Amino acid sequence: MEMLIEAADVVKRLKMYPYFEVANYILMCMTVREDNFPQQSTGVQTFSRLHPLACWFGSMMLCFAGGILGNFLLGEPLLTPLQSEREVITATIVWYLINYAPFDFVYKLCKFTPIRLIISLMKEVHRANKVNHGILFALKNFPGSHIVVGVFGVLKGSASLHMRVFQRLVCGIWQPTGLELLKPSPVTKASLVATVTLILLYEGFIDFPVQLVYALVILFFVLVRLLNMAFNIDIFSPFENLFCSVFMGGLIDALKRVTDRPEDATAAAAAAKNNPLNKPKEE
Amino acid sequence: MEMLIEAADVVKRLKMYPYFEVANYILMCMTVREDNFPQQSTGVQTFSRLHPLACWFGSMMLCFAGGILGNFLLGEPLLTPLQSEREVITATIVWYLINYAPFDFVYKLCKFTPIRLIISLMKEVHRANKVNHGILFALKNFPGSHIVVGVFGVLKGSASLHMRVFQRLVCGIWQPTGLELLKPSPVTKASLVATVTLILLYEGFIDFPVQLVYALVILFFVLVRLLNMAFNIDIFSPFENLFCSVFMGGLIDALKRVTDRPEDATAAAAAAKNNPLNKPKEE
Amino acid sequence: MEMLIEAADVVKRLKMYPYFEVANYILMCMTVREDNFPQQSTGVQTFSRLHPLACWFGSMMLCFAGGILGNFLLGEPLLTPLQSEREVITATIVWYLINYAPFDFVYKLCKFTPIRLIISLMKEVHRANKVNHGILFALKNFPGSHIVVGVFGVLKGSASLHMRVFQRLVCGIWQPTGLELLKPSPVTKASLVATVTLILLYEGFIDFPVQLVYALVILFFVLVRLLNMAFNIDIFSPFENLFCSVFMGGLIDALKRVTDRPEDATAAAAAAKNNPLNKPKEE
Repeated sequence: MEMLIEAADVVKRLKMYPYFEVANYILMCMTVREDNFPQQSTGVQTFSRLHPLACWFGSMMLCFAGGILGNFLLGEPLLTPLQSEREVITATIVWYLINYAPFDFVYKLCKFTPIRLIISLMKEVHRANKVNHGILFALKNFPGSHIVVGVFGVLKGSASLHMRVFQRLVCGIWQPTGLELLKPSPVTKASLVATVTLILLYEGFIDFPVQLVYALVILFFVLVRLLNMAFNIDIFSPFENLFCSVFMGGLIDALKRVTDRPEDATAAAAAAKNNPLNKPKEE
Repeated sequence: MEMLIEAADVVKRLKMYPYFEVANYILMCMTVREDNFPQQSTGVQTFSRLHPLACWFGSMMLCFAGGILGNFLLGEPLLTPLQSEREVITATIVWYLINYAPFDFVYKLCKFTPIRLIISLMKEVHRANKVNHGILFALKNFPGSHIVVGVFGVLKGSASLHMRVFQRLVCGIWQPTGLELLKPSPVTKASLVATVTLILLYEGFIDFPVQLVYALVILFFVLVRLLNMAFNIDIFSPFENLFCSVFMGGLIDALKRVTDRPEDATAAAAAAKNNPLNKPKEE
Repeated sequence: MEMLIEAADVVKRLKMYPYFEVANYILMCMTVREDNFPQQSTGVQTFSRLHPLACWFGSMMLCFAGGILGNFLLGEPLLTPLQSEREVITATIVWYLINYAPFDFVYKLCKFTPIRLIISLMKEVHRANKVNHGILFALKNFPGSHIVVGVFGVLKGSASLHMRVFQRLVCGIWQPTGLELLKPSPVTKASLVATVTLILLYEGFIDFPVQLVYALVILFFVLVRLLNMAFNIDIFSPFENLFCSVFMGGLIDALKRVTDRPEDATAAAAAAKNNPLNKPKEE
């Protein structure tokens, strides 16, 4: 146990810069690059050629999404993330290599499945770090206000997903239906679980070494991501469906369907079809 | 007169929480629920089933619109309204009951005309309170700057209407033409009148007991709302049309039409047709 | 040389209010007026008749774009620009005259080419002043963070162009592809050049009298604007194309095209066609 805690402590003290930050930047720049721009139809990455400035700005928005969104919600200067020049320059180099390296070799390398896997897992360590720091920050600045702390933690964990709509806007695509709140991804849900766990831990409801909980949070993030990447499985969906069917109208709608007059049956059936329990795939 | 002032004083000292706040929450959650989501076509309220998170977030955005918009314009943390957990939990309970109560009985109850009327009138008391507090706050923080105080007062009175476009965005609907500024509703105009009255009062231009003016503002809000709900009348439109025809080009366009060369007549006629004086209904 | 510096000093000490501010307001109000509103089809300026409030608000957004965007990025109250009542009232009078003057004579006067030219050149003096103040402000508040200072300077110089999309939104038009970042105009690029020059100057890398550099910046702005207005020339495009073809993929794509397998040739040709080097006109 001693040894386990020591190992977990090493993980908890890991410096994010440079390796984990770079992994984050690589993933974010690849996200922007792989977006379906209307100009992208030819199969060649023409967006970065036509609009280098917007491409760079969009990539930076995703790379520093946590800082930008956090500062926005706190009424702090949005420019603060740009103050750490070392990070901005690193991110710019990564963006340049991903988009303009000769023969696209950096992008192709990063896209190579084992490497992409490693980068994705490093990103999960980075995510756990961000969630942890967000919660500690919010606990200090908004003591006693657990809703704010929770929102802040989840946001720090899934900032780039929330920022996505605005990054796309900067790149000339406006897709308001892509908002993360409408269809939260497994990553956001995992951030929620991690946030709740960490808040309970810091408030003293969980009697367990902090380092171990932190390591478990990382493992949990990695598991969620692996299952999602490899098998396209959302491990939250069973719980979610259960929760929705009990609390969010599933049972009640079923009850209503039974007691309703028959002419309402068609509408009720349509509602049932739209239920999260049997959500259609293309939605 | 003494008694009247005392009665008005009671009204002015009314605590907003819980009754008036709850009335506000009910109206806001009903607004979100009654929105025309594309998923809503079947007649059953499927949006709250498919996207509970976005539905909750959108409802909260409207419930705390005044605080969120006010903080945004002041550069304060947008998360502050979430700090008052009591209010957030109350609003969440209201949201839950409106959307997921068995047999929809809470929603149907609130939709029952006499009850809806009472809730709407309570909301007007709530509005007067918000406008008053907004003005007092702005007078303290931006002394001497009457434009800022006025904007702040109007905004506090009609925050949910301005927030509407963004709430719809969160719910996956983007309707930029629905902006309140394009077609201000009677409520916004009433907020403007109330704001101007209260600023004149606090700056000492109206020599009248504060409590009575406050009670008159409430009566005015109630009157505007009642006329709008019952007969779909906008009591401001005659004044507005007069103002527009005198100052906003009506007279000048008419003058121009007379003096213009005949070949411009068609265009001028089209302009006249688009004039606020005879604004078409579907606009 | 002494005399030159003294002359430049006079230019540098020019008060912006009232003449240069008014020139700015005139240009901004004309921009809003000349926008292609769907209601504008008849040739008469019906938007200002139908939606005076949105028209006023949009015009103010452009007039005070520098202050609003700057405060937004710094987390300061967005309402601050409204605090200087003198400026707001002046801008409102300008807006009124541009939109509602009898026989449209103010607008027609300002549109008269020589007068428009003078106003545009005054605007460039105003722009240089704004860029200079923005840089000095940022250097004081974010010392040592040159990226932030640069972003702030460019933004102050081209604020109204960035604000355009949001002003249009307020006026009921949503055109996300009009974002300045996607297709930066010559004005934005000139702001970048001026910002870099001024930062180098203030950081002591350029050994030259401040007043002279300032005067040169104004001359540069005027030159860029004149060439753009008179001949529709973007003096940056040769440098930009050179830069893009060397660093932003031009050379590399050409290299790739040569070494690629022939079946990729069509895609590569399409990419080459989309290259900034031979950017199509209608884009």
